[in-house]
Amino acid sequence: MNYEKEMKERTAYAEECIRRLLPEDRNMIGHLTEAMRYSVTAGGKRIRPVLMREAYILLGGSGEEIAYFMTAMECIHTSSLIHDDLPAIDNDELRRGVPTTHAKYGEALGILAGDALLNYAYEILIKGVSVASDRENAVRTAAIIAGKSGYDGMLGGQGVDVENEKTGIQADRADMLKYIYKKKTAALIEASLMAGGALAGADERILASLEAIGERLGLAFQIQDDILDVTSSTEVLGKPVFSDMENRKETYVSLMGLGPAGEKVRTLTEEAVELIDELPGDTAFLKEMFLRLAVRRK
Amino acid sequence: MNYEKEMKERTAYAEECIRRLLPEDRNMIGHLTEAMRYSVTAGGKRIRPVLMREAYILLGGSGEEIAYFMTAMECIHTSSLIHDDLPAIDNDELRRGVPTTHAKYGEALGILAGDALLNYAYEILIKGVSVASDRENAVRTAAIIAGKSGYDGMLGGQGVDVENEKTGIQADRADMLKYIYKKKTAALIEASLMAGGALAGADERILASLEAIGERLGLAFQIQDDILDVTSSTEVLGKPVFSDMENRKETYVSLMGLGPAGEKVRTLTEEAVELIDELPGDTAFLKEMFLRLAVRRK
Repeated sequence: MNYEKEMKERTAYAEECIRRLLPEDRNMIGHLTEAMRYSVTAGGKRIRPVLMREAYILLGGSGEEIAYFMTAMECIHTSSLIHDDLPAIDNDELRRGVPTTHAKYGEALGILAGDALLNYAYEILIKGVSVASDRENAVRTAAIIAGKSGYDGMLGGQGVDVENEKTGIQADRADMLKYIYKKKTAALIEASLMAGGALAGADERILASLEAIGERLGLAFQIQDDILDVTSSTEVLGKPVFSDMENRKETYVSLMGLGPAGEKVRTLTEEAVELIDELPGDTAFLKEMFLRLAVRRK
Repeated sequence: MNYEKEMKERTAYAEECIRRLLPEDRNMIGHLTEAMRYSVTAGGKRIRPVLMREAYILLGGSGEEIAYFMTAMECIHTSSLIHDDLPAIDNDELRRGVPTTHAKYGEALGILAGDALLNYAYEILIKGVSVASDRENAVRTAAIIAGKSGYDGMLGGQGVDVENEKTGIQADRADMLKYIYKKKTAALIEASLMAGGALAGADERILASLEAIGERLGLAFQIQDDILDVTSSTEVLGKPVFSDMENRKETYVSLMGLGPAGEKVRTLTEEAVELIDELPGDTAFLKEMFLRLAVRRK
């Protein structure tokens, strides 16, 4: 398997779906749809849609309707990035080297572009349900995506993260950090893999496996991020190191130490690889993607 | 018909559905679900869910699944109010006499509570689809609600309104004002009536009628608001009059004059009453509700 070539092809497919299914910026008053397109097409790696389609294909899916769900997932993810970047939350003016949505279109339209993308995710998801060959599978898929994105999923994790940073929260530090990582980072990864499986008609046992794989990928990715922040260099990472420490941000490394954090990434990786091995079909690409995302050097 | 009694009963039913179906605030870290419940239960009049159920019953619907769609609509509406009140948009600290969500929970959590309510609207809407007796009708209903709420509906109107206020937009003033009123105010009223009809299995002709009724109600309500701002008194309205003029806000009155604005409300009302008369069932309540909302004195 030529991983780079495979990844490029899969990303290109996701990119094509997303661009085709986003609202066109035509005959509209104002800049809302322009801001929506700008945000989604500003250089995302499309990891979630690629994971979703990979699970879909592994579980025997072959319909075109996956494109709607892939686009919905990327819109939800982008919506959360736009709002995360707002002055009241992370106050970031740049993302991937280009101005963030509110930096380019103003704060008010930044808020509304995030809202409109979140809403659009569900417009396109419901469209996916209405064209799906198996309506039952599609409704189950929609429920998974919505649940993992909401108050008990990604947005729940964002809420705790933000509240902890702004005002502090009374809770066990390790429990809280695990909650944030599991919800804020892992929930949409879990949702992507599970959605692909559910749309292809996978049973509950397989969905539980996909969820467990997604959770481990999300946690490992986040902990590796913490590790690189204190072990890498600005040259290799392309962003400032020791930033967590300077921002007094609690991480797995600050809470558990570098050794145990590295051990945690190894354990999560081993568990995930075992779970991936049990999936049907040719899992070589998914395994390689997992390893490259979790055990990365930058 | 005792309108007050009927309205009280219908509102109480909507209130009960909404409170029952909102996420519980139990075993959660932080205050996100508390903020979500706070925002939705802070004194809304439940006009949209009441309209939705009225259309549902008129068109022969009798299932309990309407509760999910009513709750979804109120969550979408509340989400838009929370974000409208944010410092970057209208900067309102009070709504219906109580602190707005961001005033009570901070700006960051205000943004996320709005997001979480918008997402929750779709969690509960998809739940409604999955339990609906007629899956086809339910998917059609979901598509109507999502479409009318998004970039080409309510959020589109919000976007233009906000952009026009913050930076100005190059467009014909009357066209733009009509766009804002139609999308920002009327779209969710249209969606509510149409959703009730669609869930009950109404045909396209009836849905078009419900849409036209909703549009007229939304526009008449908004224009009457403009009229009252310059003809009523602070005592009667319970809010400052001449506020639009002081904020140099363009309205139907400033654009067309008081006489033509009043004439417009009358025309919209007559058209809507004719359309309501053509609906099946006992339309007395809907007609009375329309008249009280459109031709109100405060």
